[in-house]
Amino acid sequence: MALPDSFEKLASLLRKMPGVGAKSARRMSFYVLQQPPSYADELSRCLSTLKEKVHPCSVCGNITDDDPCAICSDPLRDRKLLCVVETVEDLFSIEHAGVFSGVYHVLGGRISPLDGETLEEDVLRSLVSRIGDTGIEEVIIATNPRIEGDLTYHALLECLADNDVSLSRLAYGLPVGGSIEFADRTTLQAAMDSRVRVKRPS
Amino acid sequence: MALPDSFEKLASLLRKMPGVGAKSARRMSFYVLQQPPSYADELSRCLSTLKEKVHPCSVCGNITDDDPCAICSDPLRDRKLLCVVETVEDLFSIEHAGVFSGVYHVLGGRISPLDGETLEEDVLRSLVSRIGDTGIEEVIIATNPRIEGDLTYHALLECLADNDVSLSRLAYGLPVGGSIEFADRTTLQAAMDSRVRVKRPS
Repeated sequence: MALPDSFEKLASLLRKMPGVGAKSARRMSFYVLQQPPSYADELSRCLSTLKEKVHPCSVCGNITDDDPCAICSDPLRDRKLLCVVETVEDLFSIEHAGVFSGVYHVLGGRISPLDGETLEEDVLRSLVSRIGDTGIEEVIIATNPRIEGDLTYHALLECLADNDVSLSRLAYGLPVGGSIEFADRTTLQAAMDSRVRVKRPS
Repeated sequence: MALPDSFEKLASLLRKMPGVGAKSARRMSFYVLQQPPSYADELSRCLSTLKEKVHPCSVCGNITDDDPCAICSDPLRDRKLLCVVETVEDLFSIEHAGVFSGVYHVLGGRISPLDGETLEEDVLRSLVSRIGDTGIEEVIIATNPRIEGDLTYHALLECLADNDVSLSRLAYGLPVGGSIEFADRTTLQAAMDSRVRVKRPS
């Protein structure tokens, strides 16, 4: 059965979104159709203004309405601590968990030879100059725990070798609340390698 | 962390859609932000024209660009067979399965005392008059296999009692590909009640 063109078109656009399959896209389109027109109008307006209003923070690369972003302009954040992340999504996850009180630097990319992605020269240069200029004492590299993240990590390590700051990266190990039974081999290996000594021989 | 207002607004609108939680809504919003502006523009345009272009078919209630809809105007459909469904979604599912070659009638509602929903008088009247006028020989009531669907079914049965057509409803029983182990009690009861005799005593 051919559903109306404009309906199919909406469904196909929604389907491109992450985590949305053919069935969900259709359900979502039916939902739009069943709402009062104000819903579709508001969503439509929201979409067309999003790109105008939201832009990257000139300091850290976070998305923001204002420049610099809320984190960069917060006087309570620890400016000596810099967390380098691949994407704004990663920044948001760390921020949402409330486990970091310093400031961020969003690379906006990663090194992935298979996808042909690499870090632009000026991305690295701007990171280096930011660290040099702003009294940062520790850089935490929070790339994702997989091949691409590790490649990115090593590239950052190399490029920051001459800066006089301490460098660290997030710990790899067992996810808390998970179980050893379901952990994969690489995670177990990491957990074993990074084991924490709890008692020394007396 | 406060994400930009326009970003949060988009996420909150997307979140209202069926099957979209807070995390998916955020992922979808990030996706929109990362696409070229044409994506958001197209989606926005699509949303604002959807309600203008798509309307119910004046014959059966299916959603359509043209009137009557593609099914009602298809000369190959069997006009003696009418399938009554609660919603366009149900129509679409039956159509998608390719198990019916007649025409449809969408009630656009159901009887649900708990939700305070009922079938409008004119919905029933238009169904009765359609059946009277158009040489329909069999009406298949395809309401959903749950309380609300059953109430709707009984209301239809009553309202069509005086029409000279055969009436049927979809069979209840074990879902094919499912298992007896995981079937609920009511389904098993239905499967038992509607058991099909495969051999008679000789």
